[in-house]
Formats: sequence, structure tokens, C-alpha cells
Amino acid sequence: MPEPVLQPVNDTLVLPAPLPLDGGQVLENVAVAYETSGTLNSDKSNVVLLFHALTMDQHVVGTHPKTGKPGWWAKSVGPGKVIDTDHFFVICANVLGGCMGSTGPASIAPDGQPYAMRFPVITIRDMVRAQVALLDALGIEQLHAVIGGSMGGMQALSFAANWPARTRAALVIASTARHSAQNIAFHEVGRQAIMADPKWKGGDYGSGKGPENGLAVARMAAHITYLSEEGMHEKFGRKLQDRAEKTFGFDADFQVESYLRHQGLSFTDRFDANSYLYITRAMDYFDLAEEVPGEDGGGKLASAFAGSEVRFCLISFDTDWLYPTSESRGIAHALNAAGAPVSFVELSAPFGHDSFLLDVPAQDRVIAGFLG
Amino acid sequence: MPEPVLQPVNDTLVLPAPLPLDGGQVLENVAVAYETSGTLNSDKSNVVLLFHALTMDQHVVGTHPKTGKPGWWAKSVGPGKVIDTDHFFVICANVLGGCMGSTGPASIAPDGQPYAMRFPVITIRDMVRAQVALLDALGIEQLHAVIGGSMGGMQALSFAANWPARTRAALVIASTARHSAQNIAFHEVGRQAIMADPKWKGGDYGSGKGPENGLAVARMAAHITYLSEEGMHEKFGRKLQDRAEKTFGFDADFQVESYLRHQGLSFTDRFDANSYLYITRAMDYFDLAEEVPGEDGGGKLASAFAGSEVRFCLISFDTDWLYPTSESRGIAHALNAAGAPVSFVELSAPFGHDSFLLDVPAQDRVIAGFLG
Repeated sequence: MPEPVLQPVNDTLVLPAPLPLDGGQVLENVAVAYETSGTLNSDKSNVVLLFHALTMDQHVVGTHPKTGKPGWWAKSVGPGKVIDTDHFFVICANVLGGCMGSTGPASIAPDGQPYAMRFPVITIRDMVRAQVALLDALGIEQLHAVIGGSMGGMQALSFAANWPARTRAALVIASTARHSAQNIAFHEVGRQAIMADPKWKGGDYGSGKGPENGLAVARMAAHITYLSEEGMHEKFGRKLQDRAEKTFGFDADFQVESYLRHQGLSFTDRFDANSYLYITRAMDYFDLAEEVPGEDGGGKLASAFAGSEVRFCLISFDTDWLYPTSESRGIAHALNAAGAPVSFVELSAPFGHDSFLLDVPAQDRVIAGFLG
Repeated sequence: MPEPVLQPVNDTLVLPAPLPLDGGQVLENVAVAYETSGTLNSDKSNVVLLFHALTMDQHVVGTHPKTGKPGWWAKSVGPGKVIDTDHFFVICANVLGGCMGSTGPASIAPDGQPYAMRFPVITIRDMVRAQVALLDALGIEQLHAVIGGSMGGMQALSFAANWPARTRAALVIASTARHSAQNIAFHEVGRQAIMADPKWKGGDYGSGKGPENGLAVARMAAHITYLSEEGMHEKFGRKLQDRAEKTFGFDADFQVESYLRHQGLSFTDRFDANSYLYITRAMDYFDLAEEVPGEDGGGKLASAFAGSEVRFCLISFDTDWLYPTSESRGIAHALNAAGAPVSFVELSAPFGHDSFLLDVPAQDRVIAGFLG
């Protein structure tokens, strides 16, 4: 019997008030596009807010309108699933700066032209602030939990640290409290690849073909960091692509080359290059200890969680070299130092950083147990 | 008292015979540009052949003609140094496919035009074959040792496996017997960045400005793999570049961004983009077990060393994630299985893959001890 198809609801809210940003600017008429699944209960106490990662969007469950593929966490969100929509009302919003309906660099500025690079540089907290305003507009006072992996985990941390009264729990998966030099370096390569593409035109490529080559290279470089060395070896090794011998040319002789080229090209069909610049910048700027310096003036991550009553759960993966276990351990230590309740587990999975999106039964058990 | 300056000798030899290539083609009039230091003894028994890495060249000791900087291993090669030119006659040749005087894609083909992408795809063994032809021309029958780090180590392995009678010893540093899927992936990103640059023009950029932006992006991506995460953290962390606050823009706010941009840009002043394509391709094609299949038909690395009387020394670095210790360990096991004499040591150094070029006293001791 085929699985019953969950039909999520898609909506877009224009925030009623201007949105102040960490950079000092204010954005008017901010749109927040979001997907909901399940039913909001009468006292609005069953809400789970999911935060998406860098290249994803609000389509957690529903078919993606551009790719036609299932939502990015359809395996985990739905009736009877790990995040059970028979019990929870699940919201996911496209981040500020994104390109799937929320206000971003491709949106039209008050002067009638796209913002492009006139869009203000935003932070992870700005993304969260827009989503708190969405909750305000929906009349949701306190969440059952915030959940996010990777950049979604940064948003979950920022939410819990900056708006601790607005959630009872925070689940942070394969994430970090600050971008490392190596993290910044990989993003900088991607940005330089985009900006080096003459079709980028200083961001003013309009609605036509943008810097597709540059964006594809950026995606390829980033994609390597999402996989583990072991996982790549298992999947590809030195296997050749549809040929018995090397061609002694520059075609994609190796399967891993063919795979990466496909990843790069398909990405350009669904993602906006300027959004990629702004969102990677926000991630590189992220440093929770700086964002919430606490009364002691900051620098210590523990200060970000001082007095917090939020229950935390942290999950890392042993093959994730983008945000390795040591990053989650650092957050756990800071939460311990702040006296906040936290459980932390490192899971074993061969898929590297991408493990949080893939089939890891142990992760399902941790999430289900934590959500209660 | 200033250190006496060693004046190496630079020369270029045009090989007297055509050079057959692994891809089946034959190259005529192959030039091999090389640097020598020290004095060749009467029975030509004191020769050390150094192989250079991907982005280096024959200028081991002497001032680089394009950058004006000291040779890439001037700290280790010279009178009284680790590779002592009071005793050894040290040769290093620019690899086939390179851009510092040896025949490569920028060289003029028989039709009077640059080869560009008509240059045949070459292998690591082709590079070595050109250098064996150089030794033939110089009348050098057997070397005291071959030495190489990174791609130089691949050449040292290929030399020892394919021409075992031509050297008494082989020193292989921070290298691998075959490129992994992840290694290939990073190179493919670099190649795609170059080929995506419209100034590449299918390789026909001639002597003018080539695909500098693409080459710079390729270099930036590769450069991240040469450093350790810990090393980058120590060196850069999240420190800002010449500013007290983030600019909320896309300038190089972080030191690591500024550093990488500099690495990318300065590389384009000294390296040819097509050479980068050909040399990375040769590295990706490298698989010693395939190159020297042995009598059993191949697949086993040990077969490559069957009956070898070459003494081997392998050095790896604990923070090298490009060619990690496990790669060297695999080579050591294969040499053990083949009954070849081998010593293998993993050294601790914080600099990642680049450690072999930097100040690691323990490496000096291993090299000096091995050379005798």
C-alpha cells in the first residue's frame, strides 16, 4: 500500500513591522515564505520550528516546486514519523536572504529594481529574527522545540540563546557555534568563483542566466566538504564512468568527477547566486559567543546560555569533518558551564556532514526520544 | 656573517630521442629544464635527483626568476645542509607538462603554434621517463637516491618501481601511491574553475592574459587542502584583517580570506593555467599498482615492488589530510610484502601537507640519516 501523501500548506507572510538587522539597517515589507504540516492545537503548544541548511528551503515535506523531488526531510517529518505531524505542528520558513519566496537579494527593492548586491549583509540572528516575527504574527508564544542541522543548527542555537523564553527545547545537529578558519576558507573559494564569473556582473544579472559556471564551481567545492573521505572512497573509489579505460583527455573519466559536475550543474537550476553569497557570508559571520556576549562582556560561549531554561540536545557525526564532533563538544561544555540541561551524542555514520539528512536510524531514535 | 650563497647551475637539454608516452603518443624535441647544485664526482655516483611538487619547479636552491624568492627547498639543500651539496650533486628538473622551461602545453608544437590543449595528456610515469632520458644524456647510470614530496613522491615511487636499477634509494615524503576520490574531486573543482573562465578560450589564450580568475580559484581551493584545520585555526582563527569590526560587506574581512585571495592572485603571476590542467590530470591518473602491474596482472601494490633492491624511506605527517599517514602505511605494507627494505615514520608537525616544505627538524634528521 503506498504511503499516504502528506499535503503540507505553503504560505507567505509579509511582516507587519520593519525588520531591524544586526548590520544596522532596517528592511521594510519582509516576506517570509513557509511550509506547515500537521495541525496547530488550541493552545498553540505543539509547534516545532525547523530551520533549513544553506542550500535548502522551506520544502521539508512537500514536493519541491523547482526540482519535483520530495522535501528534504520528508523521511523524518510526517504522520507517525520521527517528527510526528499527528502530534506536532511543524513550521519551516525559507531564510531571509534565500531565494524560495522569502525576501532576499533577488527581491524587488522599494525603487522597483532587484536589490542584488544592495541587499544588506545579514547574519544568522537576522534570519532567526525574521522567523520570530513570523511566530509573533501567527500568535505562537512558545515552541515545543526548535530543530536544525548544519546552518539550521546555527539558527537553533541563535534562537535558544537570544530568545530563550520562546522555546522549551533546542535540537542542534551536525553544527557549530562559530565558523572556523577552514569553514570560512571554503566559503570564500565559492564566493570568489561566483564573483569571478563575468556573468555575475557585480550581482546585476537580473532574471536572466546568472553566473552559472561560477555557482557550479562553488557548489562542487562545498559538496566535497559534505562527504567523508571514507564515504567518497566507498561510493566512487577510482571507478571510471561508463568506460573501460582512461581516455587520456579532460572528460569526466572518473565517476567522482561526473558526480561532482552533476551536483554543480543541477544546483544552478534551483539556487540564486547572490543568495549563495549572502547566506555563506552570514554563516562565516556566525560566532554565538560574540552574538550573545552576556553580562561579562563576552568571548565565552557559556555566557550565551547563562540562565537558560531551554533543554538542549546536540548530535554530531563521527565522519563529519566540516563541523566535527569537537565543535558540538565545545557547545556541550559551554552549556554545562552555564548549568543548562543538555544531552550530547556522537553518532557513527559513514556519510560525513550529510549524515543528518540520510538514513541513520540512531539519529531517529535520539530525535524521537528528545521530542517526547 | 651572512650565509654563503650557493649558485646553482641552470641548463636545458633537448632530449636526443622522441619521448614515448603512456597515452600512446610520441613527443619530439622534448626540452627538460633543470637546476644542479654541487659537484658531480668522477664515477658519477653521488647524484641525488629531486622531484618537485605540483606547483613548484626546478628552482630548488636558486632564486626564482619570476617571484624573486629563494628556491623551494633552499633551507634543506646546500653546503652543509640536510642534503649536503658538499657531498651530493643534486639535480631537479621541471616536469614534462610544466611551465618553467620543460616542454608543456605552452610550448610551440611542430606547426609553429602553442600546443595548448593539443598537448597530449601525460602521466606521472611520463614525467619520470623524461627525467630518465635526462640522466641518460648526462651519462648518469645509477643515482644515490631519488627524493620527492607530494607529487614529487609519486615520481619517486614511479621511478623506483619502473627503473629499479637506476637508483639505490628512494625517499618518499607526504605522498601516496594513488589518488583517492577526494583528491580527484578537489582537482576537478580546480579544472572546472579554469575551464569555466571565458578567458581560458578552450586553452587558446596564447601568451596574453589567461584565465587568471579561474586559476586563482583553483589555487585557493587546492591551498586549503595543503594546510591543516588546526594550523589554519592557529594562524588565522576568526581574526579580522586590518579592521576592528566586521564591515557587513564582501571585502576580505577575515585574515584567512585575505590570505587565500593573495595565494590565488600571486599564483597566476607564475603558473600557466593549461599546465595546471595537465599536471593535475597526471596526478589523478596516478595509481602505481596499475602502472606496474607485475607478473600477476596487477591490482596489488606489492607487485610494483617485486624483486626491488631499492632502499625505501617513507615520511608522513600527522596533520596531513591530503595524503594522510594511512596512504604511506599502505605503501610500507606493500614494500614489506615485496620483501623490500623500508623504513617508515609518521612525524608530528602542525602544518598539514605543507609540512614537508617547512621547518620540521625531525624531518631533517630522518633525511640526513637515510642519505648517509
